[in-house]
Amino acid sequence: MTPIFSDRVIKTDSTFIDSILKLTESKDIISFAGGLPNPISFPTSHLNTSINNVIQNFGHAVFQYSSTQGYLPLRQWIANRYKKRFNLEIEPDDILITTGSQQGLDLMGKVLVNKGEKIAVESPCYLAAIQTFSLFEPEFIQVNLEEDGLNLEELESVLSSNDVKLLYTVPNFQNPTGITYSREKRAAIREILLKTNTILIEDDPYGELRFEGDSLPYIAGGTQNSVLFGSFSKTLSPGLRIGYICTKNKELMKYLIASKQSSDLHTNVLSQYAIADYLAHNDYDGHIQNIINLYKQQSEAMIQAMEKYLPSDVTFTRPQGGMFLWADLGEGVDSVEVFKRAVENKVAFVPGTPFFADFKTTGTLRLNYTNSDEATIEEGIKRLAEVL
Amino acid sequence: MTPIFSDRVIKTDSTFIDSILKLTESKDIISFAGGLPNPISFPTSHLNTSINNVIQNFGHAVFQYSSTQGYLPLRQWIANRYKKRFNLEIEPDDILITTGSQQGLDLMGKVLVNKGEKIAVESPCYLAAIQTFSLFEPEFIQVNLEEDGLNLEELESVLSSNDVKLLYTVPNFQNPTGITYSREKRAAIREILLKTNTILIEDDPYGELRFEGDSLPYIAGGTQNSVLFGSFSKTLSPGLRIGYICTKNKELMKYLIASKQSSDLHTNVLSQYAIADYLAHNDYDGHIQNIINLYKQQSEAMIQAMEKYLPSDVTFTRPQGGMFLWADLGEGVDSVEVFKRAVENKVAFVPGTPFFADFKTTGTLRLNYTNSDEATIEEGIKRLAEVL
Repeated sequence: MTPIFSDRVIKTDSTFIDSILKLTESKDIISFAGGLPNPISFPTSHLNTSINNVIQNFGHAVFQYSSTQGYLPLRQWIANRYKKRFNLEIEPDDILITTGSQQGLDLMGKVLVNKGEKIAVESPCYLAAIQTFSLFEPEFIQVNLEEDGLNLEELESVLSSNDVKLLYTVPNFQNPTGITYSREKRAAIREILLKTNTILIEDDPYGELRFEGDSLPYIAGGTQNSVLFGSFSKTLSPGLRIGYICTKNKELMKYLIASKQSSDLHTNVLSQYAIADYLAHNDYDGHIQNIINLYKQQSEAMIQAMEKYLPSDVTFTRPQGGMFLWADLGEGVDSVEVFKRAVENKVAFVPGTPFFADFKTTGTLRLNYTNSDEATIEEGIKRLAEVL
Repeated sequence: MTPIFSDRVIKTDSTFIDSILKLTESKDIISFAGGLPNPISFPTSHLNTSINNVIQNFGHAVFQYSSTQGYLPLRQWIANRYKKRFNLEIEPDDILITTGSQQGLDLMGKVLVNKGEKIAVESPCYLAAIQTFSLFEPEFIQVNLEEDGLNLEELESVLSSNDVKLLYTVPNFQNPTGITYSREKRAAIREILLKTNTILIEDDPYGELRFEGDSLPYIAGGTQNSVLFGSFSKTLSPGLRIGYICTKNKELMKYLIASKQSSDLHTNVLSQYAIADYLAHNDYDGHIQNIINLYKQQSEAMIQAMEKYLPSDVTFTRPQGGMFLWADLGEGVDSVEVFKRAVENKVAFVPGTPFFADFKTTGTLRLNYTNSDEATIEEGIKRLAEVL
């Protein structure tokens, strides 16, 4: 008999991450393991008003089937914002609304990757990207992520064979490291990509949440062979599952829309209308500033506690925005072992291993600071220090 | 250079259907081509009340990330309804909430189908299922659909090789034909499947919308190696994109959840809570009865008009529920050619061709009656008769 399940799901083992996340769920554990935005980032009553507005104004249209590409006024707003923030010439037709940015990963895999083809990823890389791409049974090529972005020599060498389908990056406040690509590296990567037909993903869920330094131009910003991912999950609501893909590549967009249609027909209509109404009638920038102010305090609280309590040989990143920082306990340490002791001492994080496409043993770990108050952050880091 | 796009999207051509649907969009065309529920099926003000309730009662939880499997009270309600309607022993853990039933097709393909493996489908088959499964590059095996369900000899022969991964069926008021499987054929198919390890999909988006005859037991109802798809799209709102997969197969459910997580993390939280609240506080059965009464009138209006106006050699199905009927213009007719003349005469339908996995030329066509009033239905059928 043929085995029941497909190779792609048998090979994609999520047991490790599931078992880690299960351990962090106990009520008395201080968890820096998750990636939840602070609920302050949900403008609950304003969203409620917008929902009532659009039901009032559009009636049953918000409950009916709708177009696969997404609600035009929302796509128009997104295009205008790219124009305003980055002077990018994006049209509404260059934008596809997705069921969260996560769906963008699935659609890009569908549209580009045959079994055995190459995907280049950051090392370390956003773990859900590794999981999603794994379902397309690719060969992962890891490119080292340095303090200011990808290692350029490695990248150039990896892409020179011209058989890498996809390069996946998170240029702002990367997950898991918190690292931001420098202006120079962005320009250099743009140049390297011009010599290839590799498609670049710039996944930017945190870009609006910068609490230090100036906003930088995208590597390619949806031009050339690139796509830009955006999301309202970190600024308005993750539960509504509204993300978007932006690209000037018309043929790629055509295939993305066809694949979206096969995947779930279209994104939740009421949520698209409600977010468009919210954006039209509220001070979005002011709202984001409130989130930034909070996350800045929380990240500072974590850094101060780490400086105060952790052994001096522990190094860690100082993010300019976003939700995570990345610590390195040093050579020869296995952070999975540290994790087990940490959970016994009632503090949790995500060990570095699942963030590497080769699942290597590592002394690194990811810490989230957005979902704990300052006192909890200090207490949690103290507990972590006790097990080191 | 490697070609940019994957084989799966290059091979899956949706141009034919897109160009057909585009032609039907003109304002002065009477279109029986779509598959939209009548907006009467959206309890707009009650849904609005439920949305306000859940925001009031649960606050930011309805805007936060949530579990991949879906909102427990909604899964509990679905399990209870299967128990009540069909005496099925379904537990909430046997249910996965999906972003519409459409996502169920994608997840089943992901979990089961390697390139080149076999999927058995009804002939004719729901066209979006053909499109979605095509992305997994399977070999389609067509099994003829007769008035009372699949041809049993063909099915037995097809499944006897024991290398068919998936059998896809719509047992109630099938799309496109409106056909309902008889009690006897359901039992016979259940027996045939016992001898194989083929996974059965019973896709049942219309099952609640029966306007004639008695509800029949499912073929396997999520037991054995089967999954049952359900949806609120035809009874409450398609725009909210809330469907579900039900199966007692624990290993299959585990892989479906993992694949759902990769695809879009989880389904829209607010919509799940709102529908659960609606179901807890409103007369769902009474609401469904109103939809049934309307669709019964509309289907009767279409059948009467077809009997009155169409040539007597045109045969067609008499559905006991659902949204579609299926006509056959006879041997040697190409309904794509008829479609072109029909659109010139300001009436539209979907020609049969895209409902066959082999895309064959056929004299058949699908007519939707749920989204036009009785006078429009009569006028549309008159126009259709003029071109025949």
